[in-house]
Amino acid sequence: MKKKKVLLFLAQGFEAYEASVFTDVMGWSRSFGNAPVDLITTGLRPELKCTWNLIVKPELEFEKINVHEYDALAIAGGFEKAGFYEDAYNEKLLKLIRQFDKEGKIIAAICVSALPVGKSGVLAGRKATTYDLLDGIRRKQLAHFGAKIQDESIVIDKNIITSTGPSTGLDVAFILLEMLTDKENVDIVKKYMRFTLDD
Amino acid sequence: MKKKKVLLFLAQGFEAYEASVFTDVMGWSRSFGNAPVDLITTGLRPELKCTWNLIVKPELEFEKINVHEYDALAIAGGFEKAGFYEDAYNEKLLKLIRQFDKEGKIIAAICVSALPVGKSGVLAGRKATTYDLLDGIRRKQLAHFGAKIQDESIVIDKNIITSTGPSTGLDVAFILLEMLTDKENVDIVKKYMRFTLDD
Repeated sequence: MKKKKVLLFLAQGFEAYEASVFTDVMGWSRSFGNAPVDLITTGLRPELKCTWNLIVKPELEFEKINVHEYDALAIAGGFEKAGFYEDAYNEKLLKLIRQFDKEGKIIAAICVSALPVGKSGVLAGRKATTYDLLDGIRRKQLAHFGAKIQDESIVIDKNIITSTGPSTGLDVAFILLEMLTDKENVDIVKKYMRFTLDD
Repeated sequence: MKKKKVLLFLAQGFEAYEASVFTDVMGWSRSFGNAPVDLITTGLRPELKCTWNLIVKPELEFEKINVHEYDALAIAGGFEKAGFYEDAYNEKLLKLIRQFDKEGKIIAAICVSALPVGKSGVLAGRKATTYDLLDGIRRKQLAHFGAKIQDESIVIDKNIITSTGPSTGLDVAFILLEMLTDKENVDIVKKYMRFTLDD
C-alpha cells in the first residue's frame, strides 16, 4: 500500500500546539509505527509568526502543492489578533479546501480552523463544530457558513473532522492517523509517545 | 506581584509538541489567565530544525540571556538522530542549567530533556525520570549522571520537574504554570483551552 501523506497548512498566527500534534503524531508514526504517514507543511508566506513565540518557515511553497500527492489536509487554528484570518480566509486556501473535499480527501481542522473550512462552502448542510466560548462568536460564524453546529468536542462528517479547542488536538491527530492507516498503528504510536504505559 | 517569566530552551532536533505545550499554555495564560506568565525562546543556533517538519527561529540569542530575568527554565526533548544532543549536551546549556538550579529557579524537562539536566550535575542524588522504552537506554544514561530514577510519569524534586515522554507535556506545562502562579489560574487556562467543558 502506498504511504499516506498529509499536507499541513500553517496560517499566520497559527497555534504551535495545534500544528505540532499533526507533525509529531505523524512523525512518531514514521519512527515507530507499523504504517508510517508522511507530512509536509505549507503556508502562504515564507515565514510565519505563531500566536505565541515561534517563528516558523513552512517547507513547501503554496504554489507548488500538487493535490494528488496528498490523502489529507490538516489545518491548525490560531488567534485573530495574531493575523490568523488574513491567511485562513485567503481564497487560495479556500480553493484548496474545496479541491480536497471534492475528491473526498480527509480535512482535519482543530478549533477555529473549522472557519476557513466553513467559508470555503464545503460544510453547507453538514455537521461541524468550533470554539464555543467568548459568547459563541466562532460557532455563530460557522453557522453563518451553513454548517449544522454540533455541541461536541469533535465532529466527524464523512471526510471532515472539526473540533472545539486546543484540548482536542491530540485526539484529532490520532483520529486522522487511524483514518489514514489503522487502529493498531495508532496504538503503537500512542505507546511510544507514552500515552499508554501498560508495557 | 512581578509577572513571572519562563525561558524555553530549544535544541537542534527538538520536538515541536514538547515546546508548544510551554509556549501555548503560557500564551493562553496571557490571553485569558488571571496571572499571565511571560515566555521567551532561546537556542544555540539562529535557526533550528525540529525532529519533524518545523524550521524555527528562536527569539533570543543565547549570549543575551540574563538569568536574573527568569523564574524558570523549560527544555523540550528531541530525537538523537535529529541532532538533539549536539545542542542539549553543549557546555553552554549545562552551565545555564547549573545557574538556574543554584538559584532555586524551576527547571522543567519533558522526556529526554532530563538528560542535559542530569549531565549538568544538578540531579546527582536527586529523584528524576526520563523516557523508559527502547531498553531503558535513556534511564540508564540518567542514572549514570547520579539521578535516582523513579518509574513514574512525572517526578518533581524540589525545583526540578522531569517526565517520561511526550504524553506528559501538557501536564508538565500546567504544573509549571501552577508553580509560578496558582491553581485558580491553571483552572482558567484549562477552561479556555477547553480541557474542562463544564461551563
